[in-house]
Amino acid sequence: MTSAQHPHCPLCQARDETVLWHDTKTRVVLVDDANFPGFCRVIWNAHVAEMTDLPPADRDALMQRVFAVEAAQRRTLAPAKINLASLGNQVPHLHWHVIPRYRDDACFPDAVWAAPRRAGAARPVRVEALADAVRAALTAG
Amino acid sequence: MTSAQHPHCPLCQARDETVLWHDTKTRVVLVDDANFPGFCRVIWNAHVAEMTDLPPADRDALMQRVFAVEAAQRRTLAPAKINLASLGNQVPHLHWHVIPRYRDDACFPDAVWAAPRRAGAARPVRVEALADAVRAALTAG
Repeated sequence: MTSAQHPHCPLCQARDETVLWHDTKTRVVLVDDANFPGFCRVIWNAHVAEMTDLPPADRDALMQRVFAVEAAQRRTLAPAKINLASLGNQVPHLHWHVIPRYRDDACFPDAVWAAPRRAGAARPVRVEALADAVRAALTAG
Repeated sequence: MTSAQHPHCPLCQARDETVLWHDTKTRVVLVDDANFPGFCRVIWNAHVAEMTDLPPADRDALMQRVFAVEAAQRRTLAPAKINLASLGNQVPHLHWHVIPRYRDDACFPDAVWAAPRRAGAARPVRVEALADAVRAALTAG
């Protein structure tokens, strides 16, 4: 644990994550949520709460990764819409939700944090193909 | 209406907005929601659905404005947390929600799209001070 980590933060002590891509500053993980297939999180590794706590170059680096995940999801999963969000009210450690949305998912057109409207349609995700697309988008960007 | 606008989009035909700042590409508006005082939207003026539909320089310009609003809200409103989100499932025209959150607001620590937990605490917003802070943050950035 470095000084940039917090002893009680679940995003500092990551366990059992499906990591699609990482570098020293960030990691991209696949979220295991059957209602929202392909849902990824882009996590800033250091324990920082807000985007404006980061210097501008780090903000840009983090957003570049978020947009790479969006591009990879669009290319491999063809969703109806992408949802992006950095909330952190429960875990104030910077992480971006990057969520492919479909008209037949559990909550569409509401946010994924709203009450479900229906049982979401099952949709298999090819994890290797998504990881490859994330890597390709980051190399291109 | 330019070719970059859509005839049936409510964000292309804006009415009765409280605009805190604007330039040719974007506008920052104050959202009239008593449950979430200080809630702003940063709207891309052209009718575009996704961040990755924009060229990288425009993505950067839009995020710079989002982060300026975050900085202005932190400086003038001292929230417990800032929430950032670009969803657009209902109105697929790029707009960022920039939401100051407080421990006694209607939904904290849930997302603002979740079911309310309580009546949100009233909190007056000095609109001129917030607009000045947005302008100052954009000039500094």
